[in-house]
Amino acid sequence: MAEASRTTEARRDAVFGRWVVFSPARSRRPNDLKSHNPTNPSPGPGEPRPSCPFCAGRESECAPQIFRVPPDGSLPWRIRVIENLYPALRRDLEPPPAAAPDAEAEEEPGERAVPGFGFHDVVIETPSHDVRLWDLPAEGVRDVLLAYAARVRQLAEHPAVKYVQVFKNHGASAGASMAHSHSQMLGTPFVPPSVTSRLNCMKEVFDRSGNCSLCDFRSKDILISETPNFSAIVPFAASYPFEIWIIPRQHLSYFHEIDQDKALDLGSLLKTMLQKLSKQLNDPPFNFMIHSAPFGLSSSCLPYAHWFLQIVPQLSVIGGFELGSGCYINPVFPEDAAKILRELGCSS
Amino acid sequence: MAEASRTTEARRDAVFGRWVVFSPARSRRPNDLKSHNPTNPSPGPGEPRPSCPFCAGRESECAPQIFRVPPDGSLPWRIRVIENLYPALRRDLEPPPAAAPDAEAEEEPGERAVPGFGFHDVVIETPSHDVRLWDLPAEGVRDVLLAYAARVRQLAEHPAVKYVQVFKNHGASAGASMAHSHSQMLGTPFVPPSVTSRLNCMKEVFDRSGNCSLCDFRSKDILISETPNFSAIVPFAASYPFEIWIIPRQHLSYFHEIDQDKALDLGSLLKTMLQKLSKQLNDPPFNFMIHSAPFGLSSSCLPYAHWFLQIVPQLSVIGGFELGSGCYINPVFPEDAAKILRELGCSS
Repeated sequence: MAEASRTTEARRDAVFGRWVVFSPARSRRPNDLKSHNPTNPSPGPGEPRPSCPFCAGRESECAPQIFRVPPDGSLPWRIRVIENLYPALRRDLEPPPAAAPDAEAEEEPGERAVPGFGFHDVVIETPSHDVRLWDLPAEGVRDVLLAYAARVRQLAEHPAVKYVQVFKNHGASAGASMAHSHSQMLGTPFVPPSVTSRLNCMKEVFDRSGNCSLCDFRSKDILISETPNFSAIVPFAASYPFEIWIIPRQHLSYFHEIDQDKALDLGSLLKTMLQKLSKQLNDPPFNFMIHSAPFGLSSSCLPYAHWFLQIVPQLSVIGGFELGSGCYINPVFPEDAAKILRELGCSS
Repeated sequence: MAEASRTTEARRDAVFGRWVVFSPARSRRPNDLKSHNPTNPSPGPGEPRPSCPFCAGRESECAPQIFRVPPDGSLPWRIRVIENLYPALRRDLEPPPAAAPDAEAEEEPGERAVPGFGFHDVVIETPSHDVRLWDLPAEGVRDVLLAYAARVRQLAEHPAVKYVQVFKNHGASAGASMAHSHSQMLGTPFVPPSVTSRLNCMKEVFDRSGNCSLCDFRSKDILISETPNFSAIVPFAASYPFEIWIIPRQHLSYFHEIDQDKALDLGSLLKTMLQKLSKQLNDPPFNFMIHSAPFGLSSSCLPYAHWFLQIVPQLSVIGGFELGSGCYINPVFPEDAAKILRELGCSS
């Protein structure tokens, strides 16, 4: 279907079960969509910034280190995993009692308060202040992904941690308080609400069709790129213009079980997608989130639990309609966004 | 509990069932929280702006009018309800077939696309460019609320409209594209996801306790102000700092059945709350949303469906953790926000 002929349409996806209104009247043409808040207009020469504690040489100003890459302290570090100095959840509080809080929650609905126990860690992706994640070679992005996975595996050992949300905020208007390239993860003592509703939605689809929502996607129109192990698509009912999902082609439930080869494949594809977004949308602020399965999911749930990485450029403001209804308005049809991103050349 | 002694806590509310992390470490002290994007630094002398189609005298530049207050065209208008010139949903498309789309949706999970039929209207709250909603006398705010209700009643007559989301965006970073004070409403051919999950959550509480989640709230600590018909509170598990809910004290399911007296009472309380937020937070961008029941809700659901108005100041940015997990981080405990707002004097 040609872009010019598109008319307003509401779509619901098979992963989150959310309704999205595709409304071309709400925007300029997709090709004109650019960020008004470019985040890193021109990377500088890589000198440390006097005030940035994430730069090499300023490690003592950070919260404690958890591990580094490479582990050998006589070599300069390339990646550091550290505690967040301003943690949202605190590792020094009493963890909740043995019974799973999510199980309790199902028994006992309504208001509830628990101590804010949990883990909030930071992954410093590079020692250089002005290097962005997609400036690293594919092997460098691979190592960042492997550092995520290694830290998630450590957190999975804690009996009170039910889920780890891995995410990256790039740019102030996407929530980043530090310009130096970094990601974060939060280990929570409960299964977060979006994770529960995602699994419930995927279960409904599976119970009805016998298929995993992410093993098959609707059409080639929404495909941007494929590698041996991953597909990058604009989802059928993308909530945000130029939203991208990177999905393992094989049915896999847990991100943190990723191996070296798949991590290199993913690193390469993630780098390309971030380059494409930066080029097409004028270095927009963005978030990416890894959507994995909660720890200890019963084996009957695994057939419909499929992990993926979601990239969301922050081009538009969320207003009262979205806040109130949970329904998003997207001015760009996924097929159009996918075509633009597919055809965009990027140097690697 | 004194502000100084608070420690990180996770809370779940009894209306949306969302987990919120209260993390004082993430912010300055609540009293220091101010907007960095004040929206209307100083209202001007009330002259029309040459480029604003919502100003008196420029009616011909707007999309068609639906009704005006007062209806007598020989008198100047105080409120106009018009079509949105850039509608997210379109009234000229084919409505979905007779069977309720939400009922179908329950039968048939997974991907789905329907024409973007619906209504998107604008309520111009004043003919003057620089008058904000809370600058109007209480009777003026009442009339705006009565205009919402009248238009919702009209839309409720359409067999394909399942819900009307009434909302206001104030300030560019809260999604307002026009500075002239206005609100909007969207009539949707489906029950939006947040409405369904809110009712499901309130049903669970009702089934367990026999109580409506909103007929009783937890403690006086979170109360800001009360009138004969309404309570203004900071909800127990507020997702946003200084979030306010205005709740009818009587158990009522539908906003649009409001009468003149209750609308004046609500108008007066809404005016006071918006004045308090403006004073305390430096005229912040904000959204408010009216959360009502879907049309034609079965009588068995009415005992737990209780409408309310939610006000959300936009002080912080949503990042990857919130986007990924659906779990919010709020640096200000509701009891502290309620105390500050309760004690704040406002001229009326």
